[in-house]
Formats: sequence, C-alpha cells, structure tokens
Amino acid sequence: MIGIDWGTTRLRAYRLAPDGAVLARRETPRGVLGIEPGGFPDTVRATVGDWIAEGESLVLICGMAGSRLGWVDTPYLPCPASLDGLAAAAVAVPFDGAVVRIVPGLSCRDRHGVPEVMRGEETQMLGAALGEDATTICLPGSHSKWASMAGGEVTGFTTHLTGEAFAALSGHTILGRMMDAAAPHHPGGFARGVARARQGGGLLHHLFGLRATSLFNEIGEAEAASFLSGLLIGHEVAAALEEGVAPPVILIGAEMLTAHYGTALDAFGVPHRSAAPDAAAQGLYRIAQRLA
Amino acid sequence: MIGIDWGTTRLRAYRLAPDGAVLARRETPRGVLGIEPGGFPDTVRATVGDWIAEGESLVLICGMAGSRLGWVDTPYLPCPASLDGLAAAAVAVPFDGAVVRIVPGLSCRDRHGVPEVMRGEETQMLGAALGEDATTICLPGSHSKWASMAGGEVTGFTTHLTGEAFAALSGHTILGRMMDAAAPHHPGGFARGVARARQGGGLLHHLFGLRATSLFNEIGEAEAASFLSGLLIGHEVAAALEEGVAPPVILIGAEMLTAHYGTALDAFGVPHRSAAPDAAAQGLYRIAQRLA
Repeated sequence: MIGIDWGTTRLRAYRLAPDGAVLARRETPRGVLGIEPGGFPDTVRATVGDWIAEGESLVLICGMAGSRLGWVDTPYLPCPASLDGLAAAAVAVPFDGAVVRIVPGLSCRDRHGVPEVMRGEETQMLGAALGEDATTICLPGSHSKWASMAGGEVTGFTTHLTGEAFAALSGHTILGRMMDAAAPHHPGGFARGVARARQGGGLLHHLFGLRATSLFNEIGEAEAASFLSGLLIGHEVAAALEEGVAPPVILIGAEMLTAHYGTALDAFGVPHRSAAPDAAAQGLYRIAQRLA
Repeated sequence: MIGIDWGTTRLRAYRLAPDGAVLARRETPRGVLGIEPGGFPDTVRATVGDWIAEGESLVLICGMAGSRLGWVDTPYLPCPASLDGLAAAAVAVPFDGAVVRIVPGLSCRDRHGVPEVMRGEETQMLGAALGEDATTICLPGSHSKWASMAGGEVTGFTTHLTGEAFAALSGHTILGRMMDAAAPHHPGGFARGVARARQGGGLLHHLFGLRATSLFNEIGEAEAASFLSGLLIGHEVAAALEEGVAPPVILIGAEMLTAHYGTALDAFGVPHRSAAPDAAAQGLYRIAQRLA
C-alpha cells in the first residue's frame, strides 16, 4: 500500500510492505496550500504514479488533504477516536487506477466547550503509541498538539499556537530588533527562557522582560531568539502540565524540535521519550488494516 | 513653564500657568523616532518657539527624548523614585533662550532579578496619583505598565507587551485571516475574550482556540479581533492581579483603551477609576517645582 501524510506545506509519501515495513519514502514541497483546485489526483500521480503502476492498489492519505482547502472536506471525527473509527470514517475520492481514501481529522471540546481540531496528527499518534496504556503525546510545531490516549483511543487534546507566536513575535515586534535571527540554537539562552517561564508574572510580562534584559546588556543577540523559543515552549509545557499529563510524554516530530521540547520537559522534571520514526506511515498502515 | 511629553511617535506640549493650570496644549507627530540626530532643539523651537519668545524660560521634557534614540541618553533612576528624585536627576541640555531639562526614566527589578524600564510613564503616574496612599496605576498600551505607588514614590512596576503582541498576532498569524480588521469594537467579543482568559490552559492554547472556534463558525469576523483584544488584556490583568494590586486601580491613557481595561477589571471584580486628563502636564509641573 501507499501512505501519504499530506500537510499544509509538505507531502510525505511511503510505500509500505504487507507487514507495515517502510519500503521507500518520498518528500516533496507540494503541500496542500500549493495545489490548484482539482490538482490533487495529478499530484498523487506525479508523486507515486510509478508505485501504482507497479501494482499498489490502495492509497491512504491523512492530513490537510481532508480540509476545506484540500481534496475533499472530510468532517472531523469527534473524540474519543480509535483506529477503527478513523478507518470507518475514511472518505473515498474518485481516482483512476487505485482506491484512494482520506482519513478524517479529529475534534474535541475542552471542559469549557471550546472546540479543538487536528488533521494528520491523529494518524501519527495512533501510529506511534498504539498498545500503550494511558499516555500523553506531544507533537511540537506551529500548532503544537498535546493529546491524551487510553485504550487505543485519542481521548482528547489541546493545541498551542507556539510556533506561529514565535514567528510573529520575533519577526514583527521590538523583540526582533535585539536578535540575531541567523544565530544557531543557543542552549544557555533556551534554558534561561524555560526557567523564566516557570516564574510568575505571565507570558506578556515575560516578553517585555526580554526587551528590558537586552537594554541592560544582560542578554546577547546570539542568545535572544533561543531565549524566546525557550520562554514560549516553557509556557506551553507549563500549561500542558497544569491540565495533567501521563508520563512519559511521547514526543513526535522533527529531531531538533523534539530535542528542544525534551530539554524543556527535563527542566520540569517530566519523563519523556521520542517516538519511533515514520509514525504517520505506521498509523496509515494500521488504519488500512481496518478498512472495510 | 512649558512641559513636553515626548514619546516614540508623538510629541505633546503644554503651556502651564504658575499654579499648574494648562493654558494651552499642542500635539504633533514629531515623535522621537522621526527626529534626525541633532534635530531636537529645532523641533522644540518649531513646536513651542513662540511660547519661549513670549517669555517662558523653562522647558521640562519627559519620555523617549531621554533614551538612547533621543536627545540625550539619561540614565534610568532606580525605584523607589519620587518627584524630588526625578527633579534632582533631570539632565540639562544645551539650548539657546531657555533652560531645557530632560526627566529620566525609571528602572526596577522583579524578585527574580529581571529588569524593567519606563520613560515618560513615571511623570504621568506622579502627576495623576500624588497624594494617594498606597495605590496601583495602570497605563495600557503597546507596552502596558502596572506600577505600585506608596508615600509619593513609585515603588516598582511591571510591563506587559500586550499591544505589540496584539498587532503581531492579528497581523502575522492565521488568526488574522478570521478577522475583519476594520470592524468596530465588539463588546460581546471582548467580553468573551476576557472570560476565556480566566479559564485554564494558557495563553498559547487560548490563541489556537480562537482559530478552532472560527472554524466551527462559533465566532464571526466582526467579533474576532475584539475577542483577541479581550483575551490578551484579560491575561495581562490576571497576571497583574496575581502579583498583587491595591484597588482602586487608577487608569491613565486614551479614553477608549482605558475603557476597555475598565471593562476587563470589572470582569475580575476589581474597582478602578480613570485619572484626570493631562497627567503628564501635572507631573512635569510638580517636578519643575522641585528643580534646584
């Protein structure tokens, strides 16, 4: 089978053996935002047409391809949600030469009734953590996700606008003027930011504190961006811990970013581990096994 | 005398009677950021030269004119700071035809040693609240200030990057796409945002919640910007209250913005009142009375 994790800016395709092993992987910048209306089938053919020609008859897709900007707008599946539920709700789309189905995203509401949504992360989570007892999964990113899983189901989740807030605050406020945006990650600055997040006063106050610290020459340009990153990730982790997590927290994502989250979790004394690679591929494989 | 509140983007000049009454006021967009190096004396002449020619011999200036981007970089005066302290630290600058002095800004450190700074707000605060016993003053804005005053001194303060964060988040994240930026203030949306700030989960989570609420058509474009404003101001007020305030909180600033802060304080059940207008003029007058 072929599995595709089709995000906003990237498309990741996997060719999977009958036992779920990844035989080949391809990644392109043909994210959903870059596809013209009606261009989805052709993009699949351009990306994995040779695999289909070689006999693969099932293409299972997760991610933003199922959003209103994507191939077809699949309704969110409410939590708690399992592999069986995702398989049953997968939507078939017209395609010549193979069966193509799109896995829906998930929704839930917090205890105050505010909605939450994800598209694609549910597949990664169920790929990475199936078989776990109660656990917490964190997927860092522009829109970081923290999910609770129990008994093979995603029971609920929260999203934090951390990555986007970092970009907006570092690029479009006075904080950017005191940063060398090209500086490499600064572990000391990151640790200072995380430590600051654990103090009182609130995020908006901590943001100005970075400005004042720079005015007093108590932080350098090479350190400031990592401080801001640690500050925001620290606030995210603190909020997630306040809502409750079941350690070890399983981290899914790019190696460098999950390493930073691991450092922040260490500062809070919370055990964690990284998921095996290709979590999306494993999730798509497991959903495919359950397709009617 | 002449008093000038010289901020980053605006210059406000006051002609004051010997009893402190405001005889005339002028406002121009000649803020410090728009003045060429060496252009400060000429700007004073262009703005209030006629008042000097008519016999005013003292010009007292507060605000960013005393910053490293300004006329002369005056060192911050550490808290606690009084009118006497500000008068003694005012820096004379060369000027033909009048005595011109610049009032320094204030600095302090929070209990974790993180620095804080202000330039200009100290003069407004001491103008608005002298004679008060222990009180808390709030000056909303791009960099909102919350200060404690006691016995005629500013004893300490905190700054929140609220206004700048609003601009960056509404202008440069996905949140902007669900807002009608031109919509008038929406009291219902603002109240929803303040109420959300009082719930758990953290600001970064609340920011994504606005996105998800919009996806579910549970908030309109005309309401979303006011929701974000209420959310950020609510988080600022919550953080300030956690650090401790002495009500009634005295609000200083533009009428509409202080009204929004008043609404947020009402939601938290905290008494407040607005300062009399021309707080900067009153502060400059009182400092002038103490000049050697």
